[in-house]
Amino acid sequence: MFNFDTLIRARYAETDSMGIVHHSNYPIWFEVGRTEFFKSIGFSYVKFEEAGGMLPLINLKCSFKSPAKYDDEVIIRTFISEATKTRICFGYEVLLKIDDKLLCSGETEHVFTDKTLKPINIKKIFPEYYEMYMKYAQKVG
Amino acid sequence: MFNFDTLIRARYAETDSMGIVHHSNYPIWFEVGRTEFFKSIGFSYVKFEEAGGMLPLINLKCSFKSPAKYDDEVIIRTFISEATKTRICFGYEVLLKIDDKLLCSGETEHVFTDKTLKPINIKKIFPEYYEMYMKYAQKVG
Amino acid sequence: MFNFDTLIRARYAETDSMGIVHHSNYPIWFEVGRTEFFKSIGFSYVKFEEAGGMLPLINLKCSFKSPAKYDDEVIIRTFISEATKTRICFGYEVLLKIDDKLLCSGETEHVFTDKTLKPINIKKIFPEYYEMYMKYAQKVG
Amino acid sequence: MFNFDTLIRARYAETDSMGIVHHSNYPIWFEVGRTEFFKSIGFSYVKFEEAGGMLPLINLKCSFKSPAKYDDEVIIRTFISEATKTRICFGYEVLLKIDDKLLCSGETEHVFTDKTLKPINIKKIFPEYYEMYMKYAQKVG
Repeated sequence: MFNFDTLIRARYAETDSMGIVHHSNYPIWFEVGRTEFFKSIGFSYVKFEEAGGMLPLINLKCSFKSPAKYDDEVIIRTFISEATKTRICFGYEVLLKIDDKLLCSGETEHVFTDKTLKPINIKKIFPEYYEMYMKYAQKVG
Repeated sequence: MFNFDTLIRARYAETDSMGIVHHSNYPIWFEVGRTEFFKSIGFSYVKFEEAGGMLPLINLKCSFKSPAKYDDEVIIRTFISEATKTRICFGYEVLLKIDDKLLCSGETEHVFTDKTLKPINIKKIFPEYYEMYMKYAQKVG
Repeated sequence: MFNFDTLIRARYAETDSMGIVHHSNYPIWFEVGRTEFFKSIGFSYVKFEEAGGMLPLINLKCSFKSPAKYDDEVIIRTFISEATKTRICFGYEVLLKIDDKLLCSGETEHVFTDKTLKPINIKKIFPEYYEMYMKYAQKVG
Repeated sequence: MFNFDTLIRARYAETDSMGIVHHSNYPIWFEVGRTEFFKSIGFSYVKFEEAGGMLPLINLKCSFKSPAKYDDEVIIRTFISEATKTRICFGYEVLLKIDDKLLCSGETEHVFTDKTLKPINIKKIFPEYYEMYMKYAQKVG
């Protein structure tokens, strides 16, 4: 199984009155992990969008184990849990860098679309991108 | 079943390059719905925190059906799906006000804690708050 | 002088570890005030964008007097301080609703552009929008 | 003049419908730069808060020259423009890494306070922190 680790630091603006990182930031962190995962396999999401593709999120799950705090260095471990020619599912683990403690695990499901948000068959429209990600999927739908 | 509707407008800052509201805003909208739901049943979350209680989120699920766009007026329909003396689960539907179209449905699970994030039995520590929310739970755990 | 008041509530996600609304939210609140100000004078920013116009921000100033806290009801008082056929400057006061206490004052300067972010003369390209806002400007540049 | 460069990448969630990074993210980027600047001079803001100090922002200015886009690598150049025993002013330049193009310049002014947001004389209360930052100030108030 291939996964990719991205390192970030919790920002002060990401904390809330409880003194912990507000849960709404984890989907943003997942997205950061996804961007870097894609880059690591040669898939430039910037170029994919320029070519007319989009990858909106249709399902999101997060399970929070332990809070991140301001200035914590965290690892976003990202992998493709499942993929088809129309959809892609990512899995994530957010870990505290200092001791590998699991802070949060999550999943996101995405559908490939054109610029008007109409679903597309990426194998047909963007076969080169399809080739890139399919080999990293743990499970092929 | 009791639910409470809160009306908000999608902000420009909440949109992304796809021209739609970024998915990370829905958990924030759920929270707005939760705040107003609580108020509608006489539970002031502000006072609850002042009294030393907290209610961090431990699980989050969102299912996105259709995107919200800038300046859309949306309804956040909020209800308690399940509750116990230590936990509470909320359900949400985000609807476009103009035609009641479902944009997103979601769930959040929370655990009652003290200020140090240690789980508490709210029935024991804050019986008055326990009384408030239990009667609105669709299911009692 | 014409100004327009928009009412919002501070969200939990907008607070930070200091227990106050993080300063980065005020520019977003200004934008909410701007949207509603525009609507109040018949200028639909949604339609303006659909017609190919944009209004990016080029200067921002905020002066913070007193913090907003979670669930505070605040007034965003918005007015046009200066306007020309290419630029528009807004002024803002954020007030606590309960006692009219000034929390923050600010200014934003914007330039009218086309979809490629190239500055335009709005009097020429969108004369109907130009007519709408010029009469509300305190000062004409 | 001492300044410190922090490198970050523009996140997708930070973009808006115009396809550029929304202006409200720059104050957050400034804060990231401030955190790393402080660390670089041996001032741990985390420890300062644990010791009972806070540094809320009272004035903010941003001037936007050119937009950042998704996945742009940007440098946040941070320096202390002025400092006293009660206040500190930071200056920032946000530059595109690839060509050093200036995207945004800004300033923030902060006041040292205790946990209740009451201003303090840091030279008296936290002399060790005072020593740390004063020598890096371009101008001493």
